[in-house]
Amino acid sequence: MTDRPASPARLAARMRAIEPFHAMDVLARAHALEAAGRSIVHMEVGEPDFETPRPVLERAARVTAKGSVPYTQALGLPALREAIARFYAERYHVEVAPERIVVTAGASGALLLAMGVLVNPGEEVLMADPCYPCNRQFIRVMGGEPRCLPVGPETRWQPTAELLGRHWGERTAAALVASPANPTGTMIDHAELGRIAALVEARGGVLVVDEIYHGLTYGLDARTALALSDRVFVVNSFSKYFDMTGWRLGWLVAPPEYVRELEKLQQNLFICPSTVAQQAALAAFEPATIDLLEGRRREFQARRDFLLPALRELGFGLPVVPEGAFYLYADCARFSSDSFAFALEILERAGVALTPGRDFGQHLPERHLRIAYTTSRPNLELAVERLRSFLASR
Amino acid sequence: MTDRPASPARLAARMRAIEPFHAMDVLARAHALEAAGRSIVHMEVGEPDFETPRPVLERAARVTAKGSVPYTQALGLPALREAIARFYAERYHVEVAPERIVVTAGASGALLLAMGVLVNPGEEVLMADPCYPCNRQFIRVMGGEPRCLPVGPETRWQPTAELLGRHWGERTAAALVASPANPTGTMIDHAELGRIAALVEARGGVLVVDEIYHGLTYGLDARTALALSDRVFVVNSFSKYFDMTGWRLGWLVAPPEYVRELEKLQQNLFICPSTVAQQAALAAFEPATIDLLEGRRREFQARRDFLLPALRELGFGLPVVPEGAFYLYADCARFSSDSFAFALEILERAGVALTPGRDFGQHLPERHLRIAYTTSRPNLELAVERLRSFLASR
Repeated sequence: MTDRPASPARLAARMRAIEPFHAMDVLARAHALEAAGRSIVHMEVGEPDFETPRPVLERAARVTAKGSVPYTQALGLPALREAIARFYAERYHVEVAPERIVVTAGASGALLLAMGVLVNPGEEVLMADPCYPCNRQFIRVMGGEPRCLPVGPETRWQPTAELLGRHWGERTAAALVASPANPTGTMIDHAELGRIAALVEARGGVLVVDEIYHGLTYGLDARTALALSDRVFVVNSFSKYFDMTGWRLGWLVAPPEYVRELEKLQQNLFICPSTVAQQAALAAFEPATIDLLEGRRREFQARRDFLLPALRELGFGLPVVPEGAFYLYADCARFSSDSFAFALEILERAGVALTPGRDFGQHLPERHLRIAYTTSRPNLELAVERLRSFLASR
Repeated sequence: MTDRPASPARLAARMRAIEPFHAMDVLARAHALEAAGRSIVHMEVGEPDFETPRPVLERAARVTAKGSVPYTQALGLPALREAIARFYAERYHVEVAPERIVVTAGASGALLLAMGVLVNPGEEVLMADPCYPCNRQFIRVMGGEPRCLPVGPETRWQPTAELLGRHWGERTAAALVASPANPTGTMIDHAELGRIAALVEARGGVLVVDEIYHGLTYGLDARTALALSDRVFVVNSFSKYFDMTGWRLGWLVAPPEYVRELEKLQQNLFICPSTVAQQAALAAFEPATIDLLEGRRREFQARRDFLLPALRELGFGLPVVPEGAFYLYADCARFSSDSFAFALEILERAGVALTPGRDFGQHLPERHLRIAYTTSRPNLELAVERLRSFLASR
């Protein structure tokens, strides 16, 4: 939509605060260069480069072969809610009643429902800056205000209980944290997360924990916030660890007394999540699938372990080793004071697509780039060589 | 969720206005009776009883066999937006640029996006009462107020330009109409729809037209509101005519200057609609699929033509012959002054599940039942016989 027509005659005020993804400008330029015959290494992509696991695909095929694809209950297929509950028992040794699990249209659906039941117009939700850009918009759609708290490498890019306590105010309804986080890949220490949960509860608010990168942690297994408290909302997804982005499926675990409210909102806004995706996801927890996914997890770890020192050697600032996700949030201040222009320059001259910091918040975006290792090891090596040549020639 | 736990400590005020589907109470009781061995004829279901068409299923199978199911562009697959544009050209002889088409997570997603870009907190949207229950909630989530205008058989259960003009006020942002409508099955005359579009535009508002039951009209082809004006928002769906409910796919056609805003909102709230559903839907417009769907349309017409006189003969009030959808909105005042209790009585004593009027609004719900002919002709005949015996014994 570069050829933008006249302004809309009537546009809700909220849309002024809702920004597009600036990364799309980089992506559009990358596609234009590729269309002109250039080779581009894509490291701007926020989704795994792996196929949906075969057992999931095969289950989808069996379901669609049967022909009947009706709506499910608003809260999701009971069998899938039970499978997710068993996953919490087996992987985390935490008991979560299936009745507390709401299957959603991706983590996006989970965040929309959570903010819908929690946030009144004019109320605030505390979160880290930088953070996943859409987090701010789920709150704005509900008339709330995201209050983004600058965090840096000194706290591993994560908020602390102390920081949240200092900014908790009269109008604060909730705090939203992510562990591991996008764009930084860092986690919140489990004991600190316990302090955060206790603080938020003491202030009469609700803690929402984004655990969508669980399973993609390296050298450690993430512990769920549900082990700390049954008062938290936990958001998860089949997109990242389970490699099911395009299926649009996730889930939300909520305290029991919110489930009826979440059900009402889901009935009205979504009817139900995709039946095909829900049926397919029943195969996501099978041992054969998990074996496959654990192999991919090792591959992601190997990519991180290659890329991080390579980028440091090139002069990017990476003071923190992220434990998870598939991103490095690199300080490029040594090369440029405008990471957006720098990303475009790298794209044009080195053929490497990266995401400039500005999508993720207001806290020093101009000196940061998000570098995703969602491409093969040979591509990562190629990207590093291209960056090396480009930086040497600059 | 009959065993409801303590009230949520923090609940957004909007949730008080968002009602659950009362029909679910009937459905839960129907399932309990079935579990106890009773035979129930389901006429409460708002989705077609037909399988997803084979060409659509086969295309889904081919796509999932390939394994890669990534996100699509936020606005949807370009090939699907083009296929929808061709459908408007072929079926309606109306030119709609693919760039104006936004693929969505069902009509639900389309309505959420439309209200998100159009409605400010405190603004009103005019609509008919009775109407599809979720319509009110998309507006409430945005902080707006649904203004439900009572309509009855004298206007074929549809609002008129005169009625909308009379209730249009300072705070009115938009009008939402559906043709054919749920729960009544009636349509707005094309000339009247033109007057409505002109009125809304003259008042500086936006007209949103729900066309999700297009294709399921009997003895006539519906004309799209896009033939009248390119200023309207049109919502459509793959759920009803295309028999793809559980896939969760629909679309929105908007004036060009709103598309970038809709794209921003879709990026943030949904990322994209289901990739599997979008790929599968590419087969929805193939001649083989359309042939199949036209046969099902004739079957729906035959069901209506059987059921309507049969219910009239039993004493239900059906002064209007609905042209479309798969519902009859029957006046049961001759039998009961409480359609909710009456629906439960019919369920218990006759084994027929119907939807009481109260889900659809405040205008005489207690004397109406929605009767869906989304079950086979033998089942419809069985239901009529059961109702006949039940009413005779009462």
